[in-house]
Amino acid sequence: MKIVIIGGVAAGASTAARARRLNEDAEIIVLEKDKFISFANCGLPYHIGGEIKNRDALLLQTPKSLKATLNIDVRTGHEVTNIDKHSKQITVYDQQQEKTYVESYDKLVLSQGADALRPPIPGINHPKIFVLRNIPDMDAIILQIDQGAGKAIVIGGGFIGIEVAEAFRHRNMDVELVELQNQLMPPLDIEMACDLRYHMESKNVQLHLGCAAKEFIDASGKVNVILDNGQSLQADFVVLAIGVRPASKLAIDAELAIGDRGGIKVTGKMQTSDPDIYAAGDMVEVIDTVTGETTQTPLAGPANRQGRIVADNIFGRSSHYQSTQGTAVVKVFDMTAGSTGASEKTLRRLNRPYQKVYLHPSGHAGYYPGTAPMHIKLLFEPKTGIVLGVQIVGYDGVDKRIDVFATVIRAKMTVFDLEHLELAYAPPYGSAKDPANMAGFIASNFLRGDVKFWYAEDFPNKMTKGILLDVRSHKEFEKWSISGAINIPLGKLRSSLNELQQDKPIYIYCRVGFRSYLAYRILLQKRFNNISILAGGSKTFNCFYCNDLATGKPGVPFVSHAEEKLDKTPSVLNNI
Amino acid sequence: MKIVIIGGVAAGASTAARARRLNEDAEIIVLEKDKFISFANCGLPYHIGGEIKNRDALLLQTPKSLKATLNIDVRTGHEVTNIDKHSKQITVYDQQQEKTYVESYDKLVLSQGADALRPPIPGINHPKIFVLRNIPDMDAIILQIDQGAGKAIVIGGGFIGIEVAEAFRHRNMDVELVELQNQLMPPLDIEMACDLRYHMESKNVQLHLGCAAKEFIDASGKVNVILDNGQSLQADFVVLAIGVRPASKLAIDAELAIGDRGGIKVTGKMQTSDPDIYAAGDMVEVIDTVTGETTQTPLAGPANRQGRIVADNIFGRSSHYQSTQGTAVVKVFDMTAGSTGASEKTLRRLNRPYQKVYLHPSGHAGYYPGTAPMHIKLLFEPKTGIVLGVQIVGYDGVDKRIDVFATVIRAKMTVFDLEHLELAYAPPYGSAKDPANMAGFIASNFLRGDVKFWYAEDFPNKMTKGILLDVRSHKEFEKWSISGAINIPLGKLRSSLNELQQDKPIYIYCRVGFRSYLAYRILLQKRFNNISILAGGSKTFNCFYCNDLATGKPGVPFVSHAEEKLDKTPSVLNNI
Repeated sequence: MKIVIIGGVAAGASTAARARRLNEDAEIIVLEKDKFISFANCGLPYHIGGEIKNRDALLLQTPKSLKATLNIDVRTGHEVTNIDKHSKQITVYDQQQEKTYVESYDKLVLSQGADALRPPIPGINHPKIFVLRNIPDMDAIILQIDQGAGKAIVIGGGFIGIEVAEAFRHRNMDVELVELQNQLMPPLDIEMACDLRYHMESKNVQLHLGCAAKEFIDASGKVNVILDNGQSLQADFVVLAIGVRPASKLAIDAELAIGDRGGIKVTGKMQTSDPDIYAAGDMVEVIDTVTGETTQTPLAGPANRQGRIVADNIFGRSSHYQSTQGTAVVKVFDMTAGSTGASEKTLRRLNRPYQKVYLHPSGHAGYYPGTAPMHIKLLFEPKTGIVLGVQIVGYDGVDKRIDVFATVIRAKMTVFDLEHLELAYAPPYGSAKDPANMAGFIASNFLRGDVKFWYAEDFPNKMTKGILLDVRSHKEFEKWSISGAINIPLGKLRSSLNELQQDKPIYIYCRVGFRSYLAYRILLQKRFNNISILAGGSKTFNCFYCNDLATGKPGVPFVSHAEEKLDKTPSVLNNI
Repeated sequence: MKIVIIGGVAAGASTAARARRLNEDAEIIVLEKDKFISFANCGLPYHIGGEIKNRDALLLQTPKSLKATLNIDVRTGHEVTNIDKHSKQITVYDQQQEKTYVESYDKLVLSQGADALRPPIPGINHPKIFVLRNIPDMDAIILQIDQGAGKAIVIGGGFIGIEVAEAFRHRNMDVELVELQNQLMPPLDIEMACDLRYHMESKNVQLHLGCAAKEFIDASGKVNVILDNGQSLQADFVVLAIGVRPASKLAIDAELAIGDRGGIKVTGKMQTSDPDIYAAGDMVEVIDTVTGETTQTPLAGPANRQGRIVADNIFGRSSHYQSTQGTAVVKVFDMTAGSTGASEKTLRRLNRPYQKVYLHPSGHAGYYPGTAPMHIKLLFEPKTGIVLGVQIVGYDGVDKRIDVFATVIRAKMTVFDLEHLELAYAPPYGSAKDPANMAGFIASNFLRGDVKFWYAEDFPNKMTKGILLDVRSHKEFEKWSISGAINIPLGKLRSSLNELQQDKPIYIYCRVGFRSYLAYRILLQKRFNNISILAGGSKTFNCFYCNDLATGKPGVPFVSHAEEKLDKTPSVLNNI
């Protein structure tokens, strides 16, 4: 058996290693057009920023180490230029020897990953415009900084753009970030991205949201970036981080089936339309766990697992890739943002029925130091309660809850199951009612009909004929309120029922949703029937409108202890 | 509806709050014999240690706050002395008024929790012997320290004992800890507790494992603790933390059904043998999620959720408590230890079939700073692969993986499902192949017959007729090896096959199990059929024997970078 693997980073290296373990006698060749194989591509921004001090730490394997341990024939600087699937041969260009040769295969594996997008904007080939996909890209950017670059412009506000912008701030550079969408982290729904925006601004990253670069102009070696809103920015260099495209040219030339998203079509066994050619990693299209649609999601975890599955199937084991749910996390300075499953915008685009709740629990017990509220959005199926997607933005414990919800989605568990999760509690780590339990309580209450919600986006149109009732304290109300609201603090509600008309819809709100839930339960039992509470309270509302009181905004601390104290009751007895 | 709740901490306060939300008109009375209700009992050690600076932070609610928000009649200092279930009346002693009165109920809720054990050891009533269950207990201990106590003896090496010992070290006290078992954290299997032992010793807690206090003798106001091994220890005071017992006296007197473990028997609806009396929290017996046996597990999370279920059922909602899986976590200075589901000793005691694997993955990508290997033990059902239990000891990311596995156990997922989990990866948070995936790969390989294990406890008896083969480097071998082993480094194995006899059993080992797995795959395919590898490698072996090379031992750093480098291959291509 002769296996030839094109591309030796995540999926390719995984395939090769697993193949050797399954078969000691197979000939395994890895062809990598670049100089490095199996490097830590997710670590690149952190070496730029200086957190990872040693560049060698990113170089996980060498051809020599793979030969010694796994008897794999790794050839770097070898670019495959053609696949002849009928004769089962490939054409390879050896960059060092500057010669072309032909290699045969029994099984071919495509794992070339994805290339950074470089759209045909005028001036895009300016020598100071970089991307960040591999070690040479990283070296080139670090060279700029070492040579004294004091300012960079990052185009793209997704994972890489944010990580790179943070890295540049760690290097004390001025940074401006341009993002086409009117939010950072486009995979998140917009109200979840607001905190990140203010947080990055508080770290002196200057943001230009909702606009695009339309031209790059040289300015004595620097780059002027002309935005479509007319602004002109200047920096020593530019990093483009606007996404990637499957490196599918070889596959297209070989007439392998390509999907709508430009990725290679594969079966669950990771087989392409040619049964002797497999593909894995960033270049393939897979099934989305939640929506069932095909998706093209460049993530390291799926790439590694797919590589393993390729090797299994080459050796006749029945091994199937299930699906990709898009679990992802990003460090944004002191904050963490993550998501798993479908977003609201995806569900809306696909016209899928969903419901949503928001909550703001602490990362761990509020009385133990070092925690802050996180903002959780939970999307679920109205009929079954099956969890469809979760987004979390906060400080401590965000990645942990993303992983719990990712497991919940993989297991097709419901919001009712969330109520029963028994997670680890000690004050430094969590709460007796974990955020995942709390999310389950709130969503289950909703599905059982114990509470009705209104949402930030319903304001003001849906509530013109009703009463907007703020049940926070007078003091909170004086500081800020939603326009048109009246104020009856929760503690006075029982004695103030006569101030409310039973025939009008009542739209209740408070700060996080707990006091309004108590108010809802009181009013419901006093025969007010047309009532609802603001999901996520004013905290989610202010994030939706990204207004002056949104958390994270400079001058508005994320944790205002005076305000937190007002919600202390919920943090303890909040068994909703 | 008149609901009387006896005990107002976790379960009781939760019942009361949920009851009010479900019914605005019910009369809800909470009777608490102590001075405080709804306090943060899990936070007590951390106020002693000074992490939680403000004592008031532990006092989550007052009778006044519960009256204002939830219209609940809370009476502290009111002790219930009798239940007459036939007339549905209780007798209450009001400590302040020094008078007794009778209160009727429609539904009665028992949520008195558990009392600290004080066994009848001679001298047990010495005034300097304390327990730590509530605020007055905590105040009394802090008073000792504030009055100049310089040394304490902690009896009991479980959760509370460890937390209290750490707290005392934070207050710069000398601490000795006595534990009956030959390990800390008796809920863990012994090999998982070894790291904790050395870690606590490195923090200058002097441990006395495998011995018991048999007498306490006054020594001019100090306490002499006489151990059953003849040693005599002296300290300014002693804290007893040897476990708790359900506070079931009232229930016994009222002739409610009591289980074998001394807890109150309840249905899934949390109903006692009297349908008008419910019970919840530390005092009840519940079903164990994994074993199906009844268990009595004092945990805050289940207590809170049970309280909610009691209220549901009182108001006619069909709400059931599922089971308790015993998910728990403890901070041990810089380390974290946690477990969920069944331990090996429990499975063995119940004669349940199980298999186990060990692994030592990093908390996050090894090339990003701030991580260390954790020690994971995964127990699973041999036929189905269903996960039965997990124990983890390490530094970063332990609580996160415990919660993932806790969710996996709740969902009855298998080790094969672990392979497919898609968890959040970025270098500061995890690895492309998360520890949970890795555990799944290893266990699935085993169940699919791709690898066979031998275990630390098999040495030396099972291997007298075989070859003990160390595939680590010569350098590692010279430093330490298992007695009787021969050394063929992995890289030389392919060319040294003639040194091994095919007819003999070969017991392979390396440092964490990865190089031996590669060796196994090589030998298997070269027609060596009687081979197996040491589960968890020498790291688990050394923990099992708690010997000089066990991680955490003073002088043996937990992360030896020189040694880690040898396993760098596995950390990257370890798709097993």
